[in-house]
Amino acid sequence: GDDSSPAARKWAREVWEFGKEDTNRVIFAVKVGLAVLLVSLLILIRSPYDVFGASIIWAILTVAIMFEYTVGATFNRGFNRALGSLLAGIFAVAVMQVAMACGHVAEPYIIGLSIFVIGAVTSFMKLYPSLVPYEYGFRVILFTYCLIIVSGYRMGTPIRTAMERIYSIGIGGITTLLVNAVIFPIWAGEQLHRELVGSFNAVADSLEECVRKYLADDGSGGQPDFSKNVMDDFADEPSFRKCRATLNSSTKLDTLASSAKWEPPHGRFRQLFYPWAEYVKVGAVLRHCAYEVMALHGCLHSEIQAPYNLRCAFGPEILDVADQAAELLRSLGKDISNMKQSLHTSLLNRVHLSADRLQASIDMHSYLLTSGHDFPAHPLPPGQPSDDKTASGNCNAQPADSYHEAMRKQQRRLFSWPSREVDDYEDGGVHDSEAIQRMRTLESTAALSLATFTSLLIEFVVRLDHLVDAAELLAKMAKFKEEAGKS
Amino acid sequence: GDDSSPAARKWAREVWEFGKEDTNRVIFAVKVGLAVLLVSLLILIRSPYDVFGASIIWAILTVAIMFEYTVGATFNRGFNRALGSLLAGIFAVAVMQVAMACGHVAEPYIIGLSIFVIGAVTSFMKLYPSLVPYEYGFRVILFTYCLIIVSGYRMGTPIRTAMERIYSIGIGGITTLLVNAVIFPIWAGEQLHRELVGSFNAVADSLEECVRKYLADDGSGGQPDFSKNVMDDFADEPSFRKCRATLNSSTKLDTLASSAKWEPPHGRFRQLFYPWAEYVKVGAVLRHCAYEVMALHGCLHSEIQAPYNLRCAFGPEILDVADQAAELLRSLGKDISNMKQSLHTSLLNRVHLSADRLQASIDMHSYLLTSGHDFPAHPLPPGQPSDDKTASGNCNAQPADSYHEAMRKQQRRLFSWPSREVDDYEDGGVHDSEAIQRMRTLESTAALSLATFTSLLIEFVVRLDHLVDAAELLAKMAKFKEEAGKS
Repeated sequence: GDDSSPAARKWAREVWEFGKEDTNRVIFAVKVGLAVLLVSLLILIRSPYDVFGASIIWAILTVAIMFEYTVGATFNRGFNRALGSLLAGIFAVAVMQVAMACGHVAEPYIIGLSIFVIGAVTSFMKLYPSLVPYEYGFRVILFTYCLIIVSGYRMGTPIRTAMERIYSIGIGGITTLLVNAVIFPIWAGEQLHRELVGSFNAVADSLEECVRKYLADDGSGGQPDFSKNVMDDFADEPSFRKCRATLNSSTKLDTLASSAKWEPPHGRFRQLFYPWAEYVKVGAVLRHCAYEVMALHGCLHSEIQAPYNLRCAFGPEILDVADQAAELLRSLGKDISNMKQSLHTSLLNRVHLSADRLQASIDMHSYLLTSGHDFPAHPLPPGQPSDDKTASGNCNAQPADSYHEAMRKQQRRLFSWPSREVDDYEDGGVHDSEAIQRMRTLESTAALSLATFTSLLIEFVVRLDHLVDAAELLAKMAKFKEEAGKS
Repeated sequence: GDDSSPAARKWAREVWEFGKEDTNRVIFAVKVGLAVLLVSLLILIRSPYDVFGASIIWAILTVAIMFEYTVGATFNRGFNRALGSLLAGIFAVAVMQVAMACGHVAEPYIIGLSIFVIGAVTSFMKLYPSLVPYEYGFRVILFTYCLIIVSGYRMGTPIRTAMERIYSIGIGGITTLLVNAVIFPIWAGEQLHRELVGSFNAVADSLEECVRKYLADDGSGGQPDFSKNVMDDFADEPSFRKCRATLNSSTKLDTLASSAKWEPPHGRFRQLFYPWAEYVKVGAVLRHCAYEVMALHGCLHSEIQAPYNLRCAFGPEILDVADQAAELLRSLGKDISNMKQSLHTSLLNRVHLSADRLQASIDMHSYLLTSGHDFPAHPLPPGQPSDDKTASGNCNAQPADSYHEAMRKQQRRLFSWPSREVDDYEDGGVHDSEAIQRMRTLESTAALSLATFTSLLIEFVVRLDHLVDAAELLAKMAKFKEEAGKS
């Protein structure tokens, strides 16, 4: 025992942490155990078993198959199961009547043919895109039909068999629904609500992380190259992965929203016909913002980088835009989280003002972007509001002539870029003038990459307008509490 | 009859088209019908029924639950079902022995407790991220365990009950596997292969579509605004939706790859341990390229646009890069599709040369990007290779002074942009000089938006290097046929 004890303890701690991270997981597990236990009692205790008979084992099967994580998903599955069983029962009884009317010889052929037809038709229908959500229902139709008609044929009492089975399925279904919805219910709506709020924060975090890394990277080789980063999943950028998870979350939001539609009004969501579909729409607009963050992230890991000093020169403005945008995102997320309706005009104005300031600054110093000009460490005229940002302190401290050093380093990096092509050039023999021309082109491209970064940031800000609109529409439709104080 | 006939005919035609689109759908449906029919015959025909008895209905249930679209998914499900049933059987027999040893009074309590524990533990475990793919297996353990132990308790022969059920499940499982894998098998590997090739084409189409629209949009108001486009899903851009589907296809590729791993060597994939995981990796790198296309698409629908003439000026170079890049993507896709291994050096060089030409052109005329300078309709010196592109013909035909007209139109559009803020400004009273300053800033931002578009295009080209590497690694690991002729 002593050798395996540390491994076992580690494993136990992991499981414990997993449960502690989200207690709903433990609640769900205990509820499933309770539901199967309740149904099993119907067999373990003598008197109900005498009433229901052996067919009660179908109740256990129903619980095990129907019990889902959220209340909405369970209701949805229960609906599929109920409707599927009902349809299968009706088909089975109808076909049985026809088969018996056709006489004893034809009966098995008709039954066999009907099984084949039901199997083929349900399987074909469940592939149809608009019917895919009911996939489980079609499976239920298929096996329930087969079970009823086949055992009916052998035991001769199709209707009684069907009825007994429907009773036990009903008992199993009701037990599942009650345990799932009454004891510590896990609502899909609540999950969807949290998921959306989490996405807002993920995009905000990821934007800030990306901009900060962009301004901090001094090209000193600390940045591993892109392909390595793709493989180890950008290990040093936790928010990036959350943002990418947001991009891939469309299926999750869709599933949760379609489950939430099945749930009765509950908790904070007391309105009938609560607009769950709007959550999906806000999520879609947020994803369109996140695409810009992915593009910004692409700039950050691009082989061609604007020189460090150039980035620093516009650092305070860039940082200001990113901070304001992240604040707006978090405020939107917080309002949704608290179900409050407040005007975001002032925050939105602040973001737009910051973006304008960045644009103005880029415009005023655009000559820096297009050629190898030297430039002061901070190009803004004194007295600009963003001047007193502390975050840019380390940039200003750098001596101005280190720019040339940085540019030389940068050029060395640039030349290692399109590796295949450089080889090609070298094979063909390069003239000196051509090399210089090429160098200047790359240098200018490097400077323009800053313009790209800022353009993407500004495009992100532009999309925030749509995001605010979408969030306000959601707030209106979901009748969030209006708040007069904030504006 | 006559009234409903057109609707019914339309519906029938839709179903027919759906089946014709991919005949695998029809094959799958017929196979499911066949499998349930085969299993049902064991009951419909007298002699096997006499051998197996009523428990044979479990075979039908197994077919209905196990039959999946692809061979790999069916094998995977069958494995889950088999292992789940086996474990459940072992647990049930063990608990039964313990319960019987503890005496008649304690027996139902021990059984009840064990049901609760199994229900809770399997439900908790299936939430664990690394165990999520085996979700179905845990369900199987739960209900098989309950069925065996409960019916064993009532009928007193747990081992015989378990054995009979395992026989019928085995018969159902083997029927499913045989029908699925022998009669017109639908291989997950083949689907994965096609899916990846389709993604290459989708990204190539979408890149071309995006660039062509960017160069064709003359700002005459034909472009509906972004929020409307988000809602109706960019109806006029079919390739964009395909590209976005590619971005959301990571789950699909993962599922297909994990199914494909279960499939024996087959058809074109005769190698043992075929590197299906590499397909997922190539798909990930391709998605990183597609993010750039999404950003380009963002530029296309951005409110701030570079003036039409400026876009036309660099049109031939931009178009050339896009065409070359799309050709490389299609060539990569075609090679994977044909399972050929060929060098893409010359295509890659051509793309890089085009990208260099675009960079050089942007650099040479960078003054156009930073202020409201006038410029010739086509800024390239004569004799440049891209001069003879026919696509730029309509651009050159425009009179030079229409630029001012376009710019004025552009400015009107720009001023309608940050609507909230403009209102704000008007409330506060705007000075004329401020307005002019603002106008110039926006004008310069508009010009820089072209720099953004080209930077993103060049970043796309840079990522093609990684894509080529990933595709070549796949070709090597999957031992595609080498082809000497092409280079």
